[in-house]
Amino acid sequence: MINVGFIGLGNMGLPMARNILRAGHKLTAYNRTRSRAEELVKDGANIVESPSDAAANAEIVISMLADDNAVKGVVWADRSNTGLLGSLAGNAVHVSMSTISIALSQQMSEAHKAKGQHYVSAPVFGRPEAAAAAKLWIVAAGEAEQVDRCQPVFDAMGQGVFRVGGEPSRANVVKVAGNFLIAAMLEAMGESFALVKKAGVDVTQFLEIINSLFRSPVYQSYGSLIATEKYTPAGFKLELGLKDVRLALEAAEATATPVPLASLIRDHLVSGIARGYGDLDWSALARVVADDAGISTGEERGV
Amino acid sequence: MINVGFIGLGNMGLPMARNILRAGHKLTAYNRTRSRAEELVKDGANIVESPSDAAANAEIVISMLADDNAVKGVVWADRSNTGLLGSLAGNAVHVSMSTISIALSQQMSEAHKAKGQHYVSAPVFGRPEAAAAAKLWIVAAGEAEQVDRCQPVFDAMGQGVFRVGGEPSRANVVKVAGNFLIAAMLEAMGESFALVKKAGVDVTQFLEIINSLFRSPVYQSYGSLIATEKYTPAGFKLELGLKDVRLALEAAEATATPVPLASLIRDHLVSGIARGYGDLDWSALARVVADDAGISTGEERGV
Amino acid sequence: MINVGFIGLGNMGLPMARNILRAGHKLTAYNRTRSRAEELVKDGANIVESPSDAAANAEIVISMLADDNAVKGVVWADRSNTGLLGSLAGNAVHVSMSTISIALSQQMSEAHKAKGQHYVSAPVFGRPEAAAAAKLWIVAAGEAEQVDRCQPVFDAMGQGVFRVGGEPSRANVVKVAGNFLIAAMLEAMGESFALVKKAGVDVTQFLEIINSLFRSPVYQSYGSLIATEKYTPAGFKLELGLKDVRLALEAAEATATPVPLASLIRDHLVSGIARGYGDLDWSALARVVADDAGISTGEERGV
Amino acid sequence: MINVGFIGLGNMGLPMARNILRAGHKLTAYNRTRSRAEELVKDGANIVESPSDAAANAEIVISMLADDNAVKGVVWADRSNTGLLGSLAGNAVHVSMSTISIALSQQMSEAHKAKGQHYVSAPVFGRPEAAAAAKLWIVAAGEAEQVDRCQPVFDAMGQGVFRVGGEPSRANVVKVAGNFLIAAMLEAMGESFALVKKAGVDVTQFLEIINSLFRSPVYQSYGSLIATEKYTPAGFKLELGLKDVRLALEAAEATATPVPLASLIRDHLVSGIARGYGDLDWSALARVVADDAGISTGEERGV
Repeated sequence: MINVGFIGLGNMGLPMARNILRAGHKLTAYNRTRSRAEELVKDGANIVESPSDAAANAEIVISMLADDNAVKGVVWADRSNTGLLGSLAGNAVHVSMSTISIALSQQMSEAHKAKGQHYVSAPVFGRPEAAAAAKLWIVAAGEAEQVDRCQPVFDAMGQGVFRVGGEPSRANVVKVAGNFLIAAMLEAMGESFALVKKAGVDVTQFLEIINSLFRSPVYQSYGSLIATEKYTPAGFKLELGLKDVRLALEAAEATATPVPLASLIRDHLVSGIARGYGDLDWSALARVVADDAGISTGEERGV
Repeated sequence: MINVGFIGLGNMGLPMARNILRAGHKLTAYNRTRSRAEELVKDGANIVESPSDAAANAEIVISMLADDNAVKGVVWADRSNTGLLGSLAGNAVHVSMSTISIALSQQMSEAHKAKGQHYVSAPVFGRPEAAAAAKLWIVAAGEAEQVDRCQPVFDAMGQGVFRVGGEPSRANVVKVAGNFLIAAMLEAMGESFALVKKAGVDVTQFLEIINSLFRSPVYQSYGSLIATEKYTPAGFKLELGLKDVRLALEAAEATATPVPLASLIRDHLVSGIARGYGDLDWSALARVVADDAGISTGEERGV
Repeated sequence: MINVGFIGLGNMGLPMARNILRAGHKLTAYNRTRSRAEELVKDGANIVESPSDAAANAEIVISMLADDNAVKGVVWADRSNTGLLGSLAGNAVHVSMSTISIALSQQMSEAHKAKGQHYVSAPVFGRPEAAAAAKLWIVAAGEAEQVDRCQPVFDAMGQGVFRVGGEPSRANVVKVAGNFLIAAMLEAMGESFALVKKAGVDVTQFLEIINSLFRSPVYQSYGSLIATEKYTPAGFKLELGLKDVRLALEAAEATATPVPLASLIRDHLVSGIARGYGDLDWSALARVVADDAGISTGEERGV
Repeated sequence: MINVGFIGLGNMGLPMARNILRAGHKLTAYNRTRSRAEELVKDGANIVESPSDAAANAEIVISMLADDNAVKGVVWADRSNTGLLGSLAGNAVHVSMSTISIALSQQMSEAHKAKGQHYVSAPVFGRPEAAAAAKLWIVAAGEAEQVDRCQPVFDAMGQGVFRVGGEPSRANVVKVAGNFLIAAMLEAMGESFALVKKAGVDVTQFLEIINSLFRSPVYQSYGSLIATEKYTPAGFKLELGLKDVRLALEAAEATATPVPLASLIRDHLVSGIARGYGDLDWSALARVVADDAGISTGEERGV
């Protein structure tokens, strides 16, 4: 039984925390909106008032938040003495599971080291359903000993862990590269659907053909959203998709890697924002493409 | 038992013709290089000297050739009286299984109709191994009655037939849209591999992660070629890949559909030609991307 | 005084032909729509009924038509004995001034040579106003002796001739490359205007700044069209602009030259067609960009 | 006579400061590398040891530095009491003439306001030669009264001032949009030069044709660099060009403006960095394009 602190109980964090409790670990949780944290009380969680309280007595503190700013907010905190960095025990480990920038991951790695604390980067692949089913894929990087220590907690949340080395930020690169691959699939689908649709082919049938070829559940599920133009409710908002593609572009620029397809997708997502699609599912990237081809139905268009 | 004519015994055509013979049909074959056709004699094929001879007594004549020019060459022929169009019986059907332009498909549809002949467009998805294993996916379009008539022959070659309507050229649109989706995957892989590689991540491990996410045999097989930079021997040459992307762009332009990702891929393939990669496998699209990131190993580079 | 045949009296051809007459040459003109040709009678032109009649007694026959198909139509003609190729005298020269493909230019060069006739390619830069003012820039390629022979006629129409060598199609490459540079300027203006406009900067003032920097009449005139969103009447239609960018892409692909900016422009022009802007001035490329940024005023939008 | 503080005596700042002195104003200068500042002593400048010393008694303090970080360094300073912000008099004005981000410009505007100080943003167009000749174009934004006050100093450095409103950051948007237009010209030239070169056309002659068309000194000077592949010494380094294009992309994303051409240029510049061209002149963007077309001569390639 491990004493786990958990910060961030959003669509992903809540089911992840619950699975840790179910696996028999002790869990102290903090969420900015406390009411949401209360849901975990019946699962046995101890709810606290600040990131520092969540970290105070933990061996492992997991952060699962929306973006760089949210993570910075809990690690360094705004007010004195409430940040994770200030209260984490010397030998404890902070496991950052959010999708954040390579730069922030490196910065946290150094900040924790300076305090004699440990840092593991462990972003995940999977939507909320996968989190609920403990079927996430976890990409972990950091000192082997520390990753070993986290393994039982990872096992409680995921179906597998990929260890990509000792430099924590590598896990973040893998995460943004993976999300970029999904975005690329959305763009390609958007364009090919527009192409066949304007030629008079039924897109549902085209999707069936694609599924026979690729035999991928990712193509199947996203393809279905695009074929039916079902962009609400958003499983993952277009504006968050833009954030992730931007992270990929930043990571690429930092190592002088041209990624023109990521640029193309970024431009379409920016146009999506301009057209009011920011709150739609990010598969609405295909709607931007359909608009450009003059065939968007316009239904569900952002207000 | 159907009397089948078969024109074009290349890497795809030869195993397809063999499977038709094995299914118990009669087959009269023509290939420009006769020696290659001889391979089919032991399977029971009758080898002839011209496209018109292959078509003369056939109910169904299949053409499976490299490109528009090759198809025009056998349909209209150069010399008098040797073309398919001139000798096909009034009620017989020409089944075009090559990857050709929408424009040529429409032109053939009209030419055959004018002669009282039938025309079915039925391009396939699958590499030579799939053709040998009778595991092709066939996308067929044309008059329902004629497609019905071809069904036993299709069954001999493929694992499934998708019927996409009465207008033959629609099948060609589906084919080029499908190939574009594969090309898009290659581009996305090339970029993401370059991104993670420059960040110090092992690409083989990254591929393993991708495979866990997408669970697609197409990602797996092409991903493996790219991760190991194994671009020879070419399963499908880069210059043919460029031809197919060009067909997608033409089909898109004909219906005023912007397909910027297809444009991006086209530019990378053109650059591949300029760099001498035309004869490598088209997954060498990823090498163009790696070159641009300054990390190409340069091995296997075109001579 | 030279005996000139002139085929094609459109917005460009009519003033060009008139300037040849004014310079004292003899001119026999053919236009598909005869009524338009009649305008030249008062200038001294002889109007005829077919391309072959225009070519019959001419030393120099100029063709100035919309596109490849129109040029093919007059050179080879549909009906027997009415084409330029059939009636041009052995030592006479066909001067193709239309914006056509490199491939067609090469084809005509060979066809004329086979007949013992001469061929000079001489496309022009300049809008109808420049043609009226005899201020065109002419890019000529072909045998030096033949270009010399045409010089007096070129002098009657333009302010200067650039000779780019003996291979006629080179002049066509220069023409499409030049038009591509203008299209690139339109795209760049469209994007920069959208950028400053959304930041609250007055575009008219921004244009003034650009003009101070670039000091180019081309930036000034097109910039003014874009700043005022005055896309009708079209000086040069967007659909013709798409044709020219396509010619640049074809020329580039023939020599394995990636031109990604040309691809980007092509996709925006295709989207312009899809949005109904085909008949607007091609500077409406900037409207496509503005649409994508969500700031198009929508005025003057194609019906 | 105005009492001017001047921070940053680089290739641009030094001649700008000298022209202020020549116009009869008093000037107190600070440069990180003091030896360089000494050059101004003979022109009558007073050289000091910190940004705060340069600001202490000035009515107007001009900063002209390389990038955001350099500007932050002098405004907020690292060590206590040495920053501009701390020593600028209540009614004095900080004139930021560097090419910086919209975000930093807004941040400085607020910081100065909070201190009761004034802030004017006034980036410039022009290369070092233009700075030396007092021929810069200055784009100024800020409170009208403060811009009025700076006018005599602007007159000493430039040939004209464009006032783009009261919100200081607008001047920065105009600056990055203008630089983007130049970058777009470089990309377009690179592509068109590659296109004509591979078709056998002499690029020097092609440039002559372009100059006849555009009649722009900017096309002429950059075109000449590209035609002769003279990328050293760098007038403006490729890596700084990448910085500026990134600023344009950031400004565009902040207002949801897709700028795909800026993205394309960014990718080519990133590839330029990967190929070792970071220290060449940014017109070497054309070399990236030439490499992709397989025709780069490879001379002058970065070490």
